[in-house]
Amino acid sequence: MDPTERLLRACRGEPVDRPPVWLMRQAGRYLPEYRRVREEVSFLELCSDVERAVEVSLQPLRRVGTEAVILFSDIFVPLLGAGVDVEFTPGPTLARPIRTRGQVEALRAPDPTGSVPYVFEIVRRLREELADLRIPLIGFSGAPFTLAAYLVEGGGSRDFRALKRLMFDEPEVLRGLQAWLVELVVKYLNAQIEAGAQVVQLFDTWAGILSPDDYREWVLPVHREIAAKVDRNSAPLVLYVGNGAHVLDAAIESGADVVSLDWRVDLAEAVRRSEGRVSLQGNLDPAALSAPRDEIFARVRAMAAAAAPARGHVLNLGHGCLPDTPVEGVRAFTDAARALGDGAGA
Amino acid sequence: MDPTERLLRACRGEPVDRPPVWLMRQAGRYLPEYRRVREEVSFLELCSDVERAVEVSLQPLRRVGTEAVILFSDIFVPLLGAGVDVEFTPGPTLARPIRTRGQVEALRAPDPTGSVPYVFEIVRRLREELADLRIPLIGFSGAPFTLAAYLVEGGGSRDFRALKRLMFDEPEVLRGLQAWLVELVVKYLNAQIEAGAQVVQLFDTWAGILSPDDYREWVLPVHREIAAKVDRNSAPLVLYVGNGAHVLDAAIESGADVVSLDWRVDLAEAVRRSEGRVSLQGNLDPAALSAPRDEIFARVRAMAAAAAPARGHVLNLGHGCLPDTPVEGVRAFTDAARALGDGAGA
Repeated sequence: MDPTERLLRACRGEPVDRPPVWLMRQAGRYLPEYRRVREEVSFLELCSDVERAVEVSLQPLRRVGTEAVILFSDIFVPLLGAGVDVEFTPGPTLARPIRTRGQVEALRAPDPTGSVPYVFEIVRRLREELADLRIPLIGFSGAPFTLAAYLVEGGGSRDFRALKRLMFDEPEVLRGLQAWLVELVVKYLNAQIEAGAQVVQLFDTWAGILSPDDYREWVLPVHREIAAKVDRNSAPLVLYVGNGAHVLDAAIESGADVVSLDWRVDLAEAVRRSEGRVSLQGNLDPAALSAPRDEIFARVRAMAAAAAPARGHVLNLGHGCLPDTPVEGVRAFTDAARALGDGAGA
Repeated sequence: MDPTERLLRACRGEPVDRPPVWLMRQAGRYLPEYRRVREEVSFLELCSDVERAVEVSLQPLRRVGTEAVILFSDIFVPLLGAGVDVEFTPGPTLARPIRTRGQVEALRAPDPTGSVPYVFEIVRRLREELADLRIPLIGFSGAPFTLAAYLVEGGGSRDFRALKRLMFDEPEVLRGLQAWLVELVVKYLNAQIEAGAQVVQLFDTWAGILSPDDYREWVLPVHREIAAKVDRNSAPLVLYVGNGAHVLDAAIESGADVVSLDWRVDLAEAVRRSEGRVSLQGNLDPAALSAPRDEIFARVRAMAAAAAPARGHVLNLGHGCLPDTPVEGVRAFTDAARALGDGAGA
């Protein structure tokens, strides 16, 4: 079974010889060859530099043996050219956070193929590079709630006070902003699929800050709308909710084909709750990649065993790869995944 | 029913006229009279200044009508005088984080009554002040895992890499540190009870960073040991695990009398899982205190209704009160709790 078939079948709940494997944020600072590229260009430049973005996207394939490639980009990229005044310092920062109806109305009509055409060029180039290897290409986008969190806070945040004040005091402003973001995200993901992405992942990194009731009001309907409008016939949709153990049922009901689990979710319980409706992805604690190789193998075997009754399972971390992760730990992770196939007669 | 009887009965699962109410971090920066005291002394000075600590502990009673008082202090206080070199900048920071067996062995034998006697003097004074009002006094401690996280990281952290490296690579060092902390915490809580605390709360603010399996290995046995050694006949034990939706079952099995829920836990589900074994505390999103008064009332009613089938319920937030919380929001919260008693014939 080739890696593309394995990943697509696992996402759709069809039988596979063993779970496919890749890592969130697999192209990043833990790789020396990535750090060398970053000495030449800033993070934002790298996202729009087609040659270099293709290069860093492919780096983990060679170095750590992952079996899928994810577009190198940032969740903020589709917002560029939409009238948002963002700088990377190093995280995304807005001089003027978006908190009023007037600011929401001033946002340009979403047109990602016009405003960030290089993203789709990177996708096309990657698909060409990967065709002969039969390695699948994954596209992605930040989810509306997470993008709204950045836009309203003006950057990262601990307590998300500005966002929650808007939620509680001026909900119609936040609803307007989310509606604009849904349109943007749907166009952005569909354009990636058209350019060659074979799977697309929606990252709702911050949606886990909400209580279960507030999540069902503010986030679930947005995910459902995206799942309904993205061309899932051409590319399965994966949904990741950061720190989302308490909203797992809602994630399962989102309409996504795969739910990507934070490491703080009990995998066996997620299998039970999924009731065969979705495949699951994850969910090793990224910090565990600094453990001895034997321990990483044991944890991968335990994950695969826990997830075996699921409709499908994609081996992955429960969060993005950390910058100081040892390369040999990542290698051990993908080796352990391949070892699951030994003796399976595949 | 007086406030002391109401709180103690709710903690022990005995019938009450309505849920008692207090707020985590109810004495703090959101109160103008607290900010005035803090203009005169540093945070750490305030923790050891008996007169002022008593004063700020009592402030929320008068201003926002909470029905319990919690000792004003910091989870780092019992570590002072134990050979730990900590500064507040403004969070606790260690010049030399504890990461070796030698450093663990160099820690002094825990002796909180000798090293931080003012804590127990504050407790004694508060109990005297509150006796006539029949307002209960709550003591507290940080839990070993959370204190270990600070000691190993040398301060706050986002990914807790140093702590997790120790967990994965030198577990015996972390076990030694936790064993020392268990001894300290048990002595510290029992000395507070002896000085007059009527309820004690254990704050495991950071334990939610662990996967469910790692939590069961590293945290649950520690909680069980503390629950077995603290004088719970004299003062019920409340356990708070920050961001702990994924370890709720383990928190329920901790031996604590009350589990205090993060706002990201579904309260109705927690009631079901508790199966009458523990009482529950919580769990409004602290950010919701900036909502309109009507909305706060509606949320308090919804919480009380969801928790009604529980063994007992203490109305509280799902995290500490935020510094920019409007005073009128806190007042609305306690008013809403009292309004639950109207018409109940109590």
